[in-house]
Amino acid sequence: MLPRLHLDSDATEPLYKQLHEQIRAAIVDGRLSHGARLPATRELAGSLGLNRATVSAAYELLENEGLVRGHVGRGSFVERPGASAQGLVWEAMLPPLEAPPTGEAPISFATSRPSEHLFPLDDFRVTCEEVIRGPEAAGILQLGSPAGYGPLRRYLLDEAMAAGAARAGDDVLVSNGVQQALDLLQRVIVSPGETVLLEDPVYHGLRNLLAHSGARVLGVPMTAAGVDVDALARAVERERPRLVVLTPNFQNPTGATMPRAARLAALRATVGAGVVLVENDTYGDLRYTGQPLPTLKELDETGSVVLLKSFSKIAFPGLRVGWITAPRALVARLAEAKQWCDLHTDQLSQAVLLRFATSGRLAQHRSRVLTAGAACLKAVLVACEKHLPPGTEFTRPEGGMNLWVRLPAPLDAAELQPRAQREGVSYLPGRYFEVSRREPRALRLSFAGLTPDQIRRGVATLGKVFAAELQASAGGGREFDNAPALV
Amino acid sequence: MLPRLHLDSDATEPLYKQLHEQIRAAIVDGRLSHGARLPATRELAGSLGLNRATVSAAYELLENEGLVRGHVGRGSFVERPGASAQGLVWEAMLPPLEAPPTGEAPISFATSRPSEHLFPLDDFRVTCEEVIRGPEAAGILQLGSPAGYGPLRRYLLDEAMAAGAARAGDDVLVSNGVQQALDLLQRVIVSPGETVLLEDPVYHGLRNLLAHSGARVLGVPMTAAGVDVDALARAVERERPRLVVLTPNFQNPTGATMPRAARLAALRATVGAGVVLVENDTYGDLRYTGQPLPTLKELDETGSVVLLKSFSKIAFPGLRVGWITAPRALVARLAEAKQWCDLHTDQLSQAVLLRFATSGRLAQHRSRVLTAGAACLKAVLVACEKHLPPGTEFTRPEGGMNLWVRLPAPLDAAELQPRAQREGVSYLPGRYFEVSRREPRALRLSFAGLTPDQIRRGVATLGKVFAAELQASAGGGREFDNAPALV
Repeated sequence: MLPRLHLDSDATEPLYKQLHEQIRAAIVDGRLSHGARLPATRELAGSLGLNRATVSAAYELLENEGLVRGHVGRGSFVERPGASAQGLVWEAMLPPLEAPPTGEAPISFATSRPSEHLFPLDDFRVTCEEVIRGPEAAGILQLGSPAGYGPLRRYLLDEAMAAGAARAGDDVLVSNGVQQALDLLQRVIVSPGETVLLEDPVYHGLRNLLAHSGARVLGVPMTAAGVDVDALARAVERERPRLVVLTPNFQNPTGATMPRAARLAALRATVGAGVVLVENDTYGDLRYTGQPLPTLKELDETGSVVLLKSFSKIAFPGLRVGWITAPRALVARLAEAKQWCDLHTDQLSQAVLLRFATSGRLAQHRSRVLTAGAACLKAVLVACEKHLPPGTEFTRPEGGMNLWVRLPAPLDAAELQPRAQREGVSYLPGRYFEVSRREPRALRLSFAGLTPDQIRRGVATLGKVFAAELQASAGGGREFDNAPALV
Repeated sequence: MLPRLHLDSDATEPLYKQLHEQIRAAIVDGRLSHGARLPATRELAGSLGLNRATVSAAYELLENEGLVRGHVGRGSFVERPGASAQGLVWEAMLPPLEAPPTGEAPISFATSRPSEHLFPLDDFRVTCEEVIRGPEAAGILQLGSPAGYGPLRRYLLDEAMAAGAARAGDDVLVSNGVQQALDLLQRVIVSPGETVLLEDPVYHGLRNLLAHSGARVLGVPMTAAGVDVDALARAVERERPRLVVLTPNFQNPTGATMPRAARLAALRATVGAGVVLVENDTYGDLRYTGQPLPTLKELDETGSVVLLKSFSKIAFPGLRVGWITAPRALVARLAEAKQWCDLHTDQLSQAVLLRFATSGRLAQHRSRVLTAGAACLKAVLVACEKHLPPGTEFTRPEGGMNLWVRLPAPLDAAELQPRAQREGVSYLPGRYFEVSRREPRALRLSFAGLTPDQIRRGVATLGKVFAAELQASAGGGREFDNAPALV
């Protein structure tokens, strides 16, 4: 007996896929058991008001996954998922894959990463050679320490102390970029069922990580000036979260930055409430205009803030090195978790990045990155102003790599994405970044990996795609929806 | 009101620490609440039959952690753990640290890693230079793919196909060594409460990882010929595990290898039972004597085995590169999990190890490692035969890095460890590797990081320490236990 099916002909996902997924879920979770007979395609198509080919396409996907077997003349039967005498039926026993973003177009605003044309390859080569010819080479190649390569930890802690970002009693742990730092914190601090507050919208890698950790994830709305601190205070009071993650500088995806007063208010809302406040400062060193602001970690006098930083946005993303600055007691537990995760971070890259920093080459490179980033930021702001249709809103970041665009109604950013892609421009629609609130009109433009010229051409193309759709919808010219009614 | 305290004066842990931990646990889990008054040190010492200094030392640790506050003339009071207006009390809100192994002595049998004297530094430098001067350099430094560096994945899959270790439909995912491969598998395959079967004893990094994942972890006894396959078959039948991890070649810690017939029996026991069989082949390429045997993955005709391999035991442990060979459906999910964990593995090391392999330098290096390993293995076997006291049993591995020693009764390997350390020799006692069965007489000797001469001297020293203790216990010469009775 089939479960009740809910098909939505307005959804972006085709009907045969919706049908496939719902039957699949019923088999995997046991509502449809081994040997159950599926309705004939003609019969099911009739009862759902679908085309018979739609039902056949769904059944075919199920057969390919080994979840259904067809017997000529008898019909289609459910196979027990997971195990068979012939071994495992992998597709059946594993959770479905998340839909990955579609491929990138020639001009891609889809990835928040630096342009590789800026990579200082000669400086990198010299640095690498100094490291591998140096006296530490054999030690670097030997098994290392979970908390990180000693000389790099020392350097990072000294720098943080000098900048006022580390206090007495703090320590540093090196992770494989900020993504792993977030994973380690989640493992050590959050038990299943505990509440975590995230900015909404937020970097999808953070949301996905926490959604899979068993935590209860709630969003706090973002404003053009960073997280809404009043809403944050109310949520902390009401939800008693274990962890709050904030990105005060050039937040991904919005590009928003919290003013000093908001930072102080965020601290007041969390300190004393038993909350671990994690400050994701991935983009903090990429300020192109305006005055630098102190991090939450610098403003906090109580030792309740955990600061995350990374080399990967400013230097080389392919080398996975970030770090956590936090009280020693926490760093000791994170090091233990790190040992279970992957023993330690790759030491060659740690040593190369240390040398890159101490030789002064990182600072030189950073100043070139800032010059290039300022030009990109200016280009994207001017282009948005000029090319996007009236009624479009967008943030005006002072740094980082991302801009948040809200299209005028009734445009839907996810729906328009394939059209833009056909015109050679890609972006990520807002739904990749949603926590609790839907924002179908929003999209992220990641501008730092492109040249100003690409940015201008790309935004101009987007402007045309959006304007055409606006015109079509204003004229009532949208295609008819021919799908039959659901019964 | 203090909870009931259970102090054990025979334990290796000092009494003040036991006291501290038990009071601490009561505060952290709420049995002792904020503001509760602790008994005066004199009073508690009297009631427990302890020295007053012991109680004071425990209270002092609690005060340092912010869990107790002393008020002159009034006594000591419990502080609410985790939160205070002054911020977080980290020690109180975090789980206690596991006891790490004590430091390493001049001759250390404690770590299963290669000798860095064997590292081919010149070959490594040349390889590194070829990579950073090659046309792929900028691409390597850019953000990579969760499943690994494309050219390395292709090479590893081709090699596995050629060796019969990969089948049509298999794929490869690069991880930060085998440790992360195990973590990714655990995340994707095992839900909290599901059962996992491990060899017993087993590599502690695997046991610790799974113990913290929420899985139900059961051990299957090891024999001198690998896991006890009859016990495995019974456990699969009885426990319906989700995952079984086996190490057919040179298992860590025992050094045992499964004969071909046992491999086939292990497959029969697991295939068809809905079990994912993970084959940890970290040490498989380190065979010093005897004939190579096919991996489980090669013998399996059903696509139910997941094979884990690594560069880190044969080349450079400081570069964290291992890989998983598995059906494509599983690799796709592992890649998704990898993205949440740390985006992707460091690309510089992936590219360097690929070049190291394709240039033929890895094969040359491996043959030197095998020659050196054979000499170490011979040295450790001869030395154990010659120096360890009569009644000692030990395994006779044909490869790998580890040997498992069982001392004659009544010796206790954990108790003797500090004594050996004082004599300049360290090892890990069996308890680091226990899953379900206690083996207090067992210890692991990791021999591959030492020279044959160090091995001979180290084992001779151990022989003396063990013999002395045997003599003392035979003569009834153990020290009196002076601790007062517990009341």
